[in-house]
Amino acid sequence: MQAATTAYHGRFGAVIAARLDELAAVSDEPGCLTRLYLGPAHRKAVDLVSAWMREAGMTVRLDAAGSVIGRYEARDGAARTLLLGSHIDTVRNAGRFDGNLGVVTAIEVVRAALETGKRYPFAVEVVAFGDEEGVRFASTLGGARALAGTFDVKALDEVDGAGITRRQALIAFGCDPARLPAEARASGQIAGYAEVHIEQGPVLEKEGLPLGVVTAIDGVTRGTVEIEGVTGHAGTVPMSMRNDALAAAAEMLVAIEGRARSRPNLVATVGKIDVADAATNTIPGKVRFTLDLRSPFDQERASALSDIRDVVAATAKRRGVTARFLIGHEASAAYCDRRLSDRLAAAVEACGVEARRLPSGAGHDAMAFDRVIPFAMLFVRCRNGVSHSPAEYAAPGDIDIAARALAIFLDMIGAQP
Amino acid sequence: MQAATTAYHGRFGAVIAARLDELAAVSDEPGCLTRLYLGPAHRKAVDLVSAWMREAGMTVRLDAAGSVIGRYEARDGAARTLLLGSHIDTVRNAGRFDGNLGVVTAIEVVRAALETGKRYPFAVEVVAFGDEEGVRFASTLGGARALAGTFDVKALDEVDGAGITRRQALIAFGCDPARLPAEARASGQIAGYAEVHIEQGPVLEKEGLPLGVVTAIDGVTRGTVEIEGVTGHAGTVPMSMRNDALAAAAEMLVAIEGRARSRPNLVATVGKIDVADAATNTIPGKVRFTLDLRSPFDQERASALSDIRDVVAATAKRRGVTARFLIGHEASAAYCDRRLSDRLAAAVEACGVEARRLPSGAGHDAMAFDRVIPFAMLFVRCRNGVSHSPAEYAAPGDIDIAARALAIFLDMIGAQP
Repeated sequence: MQAATTAYHGRFGAVIAARLDELAAVSDEPGCLTRLYLGPAHRKAVDLVSAWMREAGMTVRLDAAGSVIGRYEARDGAARTLLLGSHIDTVRNAGRFDGNLGVVTAIEVVRAALETGKRYPFAVEVVAFGDEEGVRFASTLGGARALAGTFDVKALDEVDGAGITRRQALIAFGCDPARLPAEARASGQIAGYAEVHIEQGPVLEKEGLPLGVVTAIDGVTRGTVEIEGVTGHAGTVPMSMRNDALAAAAEMLVAIEGRARSRPNLVATVGKIDVADAATNTIPGKVRFTLDLRSPFDQERASALSDIRDVVAATAKRRGVTARFLIGHEASAAYCDRRLSDRLAAAVEACGVEARRLPSGAGHDAMAFDRVIPFAMLFVRCRNGVSHSPAEYAAPGDIDIAARALAIFLDMIGAQP
Repeated sequence: MQAATTAYHGRFGAVIAARLDELAAVSDEPGCLTRLYLGPAHRKAVDLVSAWMREAGMTVRLDAAGSVIGRYEARDGAARTLLLGSHIDTVRNAGRFDGNLGVVTAIEVVRAALETGKRYPFAVEVVAFGDEEGVRFASTLGGARALAGTFDVKALDEVDGAGITRRQALIAFGCDPARLPAEARASGQIAGYAEVHIEQGPVLEKEGLPLGVVTAIDGVTRGTVEIEGVTGHAGTVPMSMRNDALAAAAEMLVAIEGRARSRPNLVATVGKIDVADAATNTIPGKVRFTLDLRSPFDQERASALSDIRDVVAATAKRRGVTARFLIGHEASAAYCDRRLSDRLAAAVEACGVEARRLPSGAGHDAMAFDRVIPFAMLFVRCRNGVSHSPAEYAAPGDIDIAARALAIFLDMIGAQP
């Protein structure tokens, strides 16, 4: 079994990098990569990916959610299916690795199997989802939710910036929205889902490791804190008589950061802060800031949120300002399957590199499989942790190890069903 | 001497309040008070104030800077001149007391003298300046600077939002810019300048006092701090690997506030803060905030500024971000004349109220007299410390005491030359 992957040592990286370059040219905007769900570039990318899938011995179909699914049949007909894949939609002015890497890598690993005549004791389906970034419509993960059987048909009425509904866009793309419920996979048929993705963070690079095995996709709480104090003249109100909304916010930010630092995998970010009617010589009376809180452990996130609420309330009270805490969005952590992840880690170690376990602070298609389809994720080191930018970069050497690890992972599952 | 003021006990307040109402109707905008320097409402206000001055026995002229000057002659011809006054320009959507109160009060005090046939051993000139708020042109205090002999003719080339120069606006108003240097008063001719103004702050109200005697007009430093950290994904960068520009700013804000609180008359305000390319799920990479630092003691302000610079630099260094500190504007404190202020305090006490000494955190025309014409200022309590707003309010009862104190002050100077 090891022979097939060894034969591709070093070649995976170069081939995958070249195909990512080719795919990156498929864009809705000249001069940069923008490929929105069900748009013209998505259409062309579907065709290109379909061609690569066929070349790798797969039968290809476009499902009702606009996902391309290539199927590489099992050694015997009645076998279960292992899903591989990622997404081919992008943000605006994107990098070429986010999502696309996982799709191209999965196709190349299947092609390597085909070239050596290898079949697994399970069918492999490579899925290229199209709705991961959530740029065009309000909701996201439509493709993965369709497979998981959790797609909410109300999302079909969402409209994009041009007033086109998700339903209309699907039909124009050649998809039948009425068939969406039928895309749900009976869980007994699916052995699991494995995805290769760039880390989109700096941890692996800092630790000098090419790969990481994901433990969970962080749960997230997003909210807004609105503070109301008393505006005033910057010169005429003594410090002791102020109810400065921004000074209160600053103290809260310091406390929020301190709380997040107290636990290794907890992160809290205040990304936006706005002072109403701000002027250099005016004491701020109204301030709003956002909070983005994430952890791979829901209990830890809940506990941090509770502490942050307490410190916000106490700070406001002590300073004679009011603070409203508004929760905008909450999502539970999605845990990777222990058995699949352990095998992925073993495959990584078989490549001679350490299998660093780490949570994913970013969301991924696999979140939609939470408690429905067991999943595992393999992270690839990226330069400076940068993503969602043309500066996004993963080295061909690292990509090569990721592809080898994925191939070994398939072999391992085949060997120990 | 006391008789004249006693006769007006209680009447000053009602008359002045009524005239402030009348003056407040003179606006460039319907439904709110906006009276910009050399605009149409300013023209009408000049006419109204001129009429009141004449009625009070004054000869009136419009000077080269657009200030209205009413002169009430002295008992004998060769005497020096005491200046009283304030300004009649306003901010947009202004209150009716800021500036206007000092002009109307001075006129009423002179009218009271006229009605009892009183002349002082000095001439009294009531000046209604027109360029205090600095809304229309870049520089300000043009009227007071002309009297002080410090008007910079370069300011004549400043343009307003409509492209009109200060020179053009003066000429259209009937003023001769070439005569501006001739407005300078030889310091030997001027006994001093006294101004009644609302406090524009909450100190007197909090202490239950109607009046305050100003010690100095605060010196001010205005600047901007620009912080550059490293932007990143709110989910994927562990807290320990962040160089969050906003978190750094928050820590600096807390330190700045703490430093300002360490001294009674020092105030520091961060009124604006902006995160570049802010998003809820993005770690801020670039942040700018403003600083407004004031104190009646220049050395105290310099020392605070130095400490704030140090804490900004140290915080930036510790957090791996860079911080640039840019000074935008600096002005020294302007000290009130001790002798005039002591007499003003004695006059306040003669009205049976405590003469609370306090600095002025806001700027005033008198700043332009610093080290040229000795000046004193009398603050009147205003509701909630609010100014530059239609909600601005001073009670007729408080205004009445201020006018009586000003009348007594004139009597005292007359008695002890």
